[in-house]
Amino acid sequence: MERKLILITNDDGVGAQGIQELAQLMLQLGDVIIVAPDSPRSGAACYITCTQAITLGRRVDMEQEGLQVYACSGSPVDCVKLALEQVCPRVPDLLVSGINHGDNASCSIHYSGTMGAVLEGCMKGIPSVGYSLRTLKRKCDFSPYAEQVRLIAQTVLSQGLPQDVCLNVNFPEVAELAGMRVCRMGRGRWVQEWISANNPRGMNAFWLTGRFLNLEPHSEDTDYWALDHGYGAITPIQIDMTAYSVMDSLKSLES
Amino acid sequence: MERKLILITNDDGVGAQGIQELAQLMLQLGDVIIVAPDSPRSGAACYITCTQAITLGRRVDMEQEGLQVYACSGSPVDCVKLALEQVCPRVPDLLVSGINHGDNASCSIHYSGTMGAVLEGCMKGIPSVGYSLRTLKRKCDFSPYAEQVRLIAQTVLSQGLPQDVCLNVNFPEVAELAGMRVCRMGRGRWVQEWISANNPRGMNAFWLTGRFLNLEPHSEDTDYWALDHGYGAITPIQIDMTAYSVMDSLKSLES
Repeated sequence: MERKLILITNDDGVGAQGIQELAQLMLQLGDVIIVAPDSPRSGAACYITCTQAITLGRRVDMEQEGLQVYACSGSPVDCVKLALEQVCPRVPDLLVSGINHGDNASCSIHYSGTMGAVLEGCMKGIPSVGYSLRTLKRKCDFSPYAEQVRLIAQTVLSQGLPQDVCLNVNFPEVAELAGMRVCRMGRGRWVQEWISANNPRGMNAFWLTGRFLNLEPHSEDTDYWALDHGYGAITPIQIDMTAYSVMDSLKSLES
Repeated sequence: MERKLILITNDDGVGAQGIQELAQLMLQLGDVIIVAPDSPRSGAACYITCTQAITLGRRVDMEQEGLQVYACSGSPVDCVKLALEQVCPRVPDLLVSGINHGDNASCSIHYSGTMGAVLEGCMKGIPSVGYSLRTLKRKCDFSPYAEQVRLIAQTVLSQGLPQDVCLNVNFPEVAELAGMRVCRMGRGRWVQEWISANNPRGMNAFWLTGRFLNLEPHSEDTDYWALDHGYGAITPIQIDMTAYSVMDSLKSLES
């Protein structure tokens, strides 16, 4: 039987610790191809590069048996698109993205390059999973999550995922997980998002920052609650964003 | 009674024809503040700028009675975040984005900077609507859509929208609309997405291009079908991307 083919990307860049740890875990399940941004692309969402050409370079220095590595000048979504058309010898059996340094729970999924890549894989029909760790550190201990990362990937490899559905998996930074929970995406928003950048030439200039506001801190079925209480959160995410429940109320706009 | 305050942005940049036309229509409904990218940002999705400071400059040359205009060096989502915290004197009654040159129907919503800005407004609790025209032209006749653009904005201004729901409005390029339909987001994907960029220094380099593949061309309730048949499409979009219907099937991953 042919070995499974697993495509890996991220938004922290090919040199990040999280993607290297993920690659080592995935090598236990199949052959691995990394196509990842050549530098960090946090907050890239589903950004696609329309205004310039994308370069792709092989990083043989980072390769090992069963592992090919490519660095790409584009976004995480560009990486997936490029991998599927220009790099992979066949359609991958699984796409995994991460492990992101920073969580992508609640509304943060909309800004996440990690999850942008996962949505792209999903739209291309590939079972796709994003992994993120709630941490501010560039160097982390990923060992408390290794078993769950592998187990979820293995399950998706063997069972697949429903059409147009992918997984957003988030871990809290803990020595030992309280467990794993299947969650919905919690309601939240970012507030107090700008600080002045003190531009020396007198222009108004600002740095993006911000604080996350959990709009339902007591809802135990949300991803954010799980993280706050030491659980890993598995949230199924769908491509279809239609708000079906309100379609009828808009009928007065038809003509 | 205080005049309504309408915030406008887009992803084609402050100088695009579509945003200027939209501003003139919105001035019939209230005071208008434009905070838009200083140059085109197509494909920006929900990109947020984390790695550099954002500048904001007033464009008094583009202003008129009731209209303030700001150009921002960031993404469409940055523009909305900056407008709400640093520019608007009060919370806007409405956010509109566009009119985009190019449709954002089906899966294209995930890549759309126009709709990224709309999702951001929606997450901030502001009734938000994106308008897009299926055209390849930089200079278009927007008059066939003016009445519908205004009518939808007026309705949303007076009735609001449900919590965490925004609108994605797409028009076909026609002399006269066949009508307006409330639609769901059709299934589709982009294929054949890269052409070689003939890099003179021998690197692998590619330009993003592609062809849209409609995966359900005969489904009359989709946005894409509506556009193909001369109708304007009004698609309600929700922030919550949870795939509720598959949560039970994932319970085996809990621990």
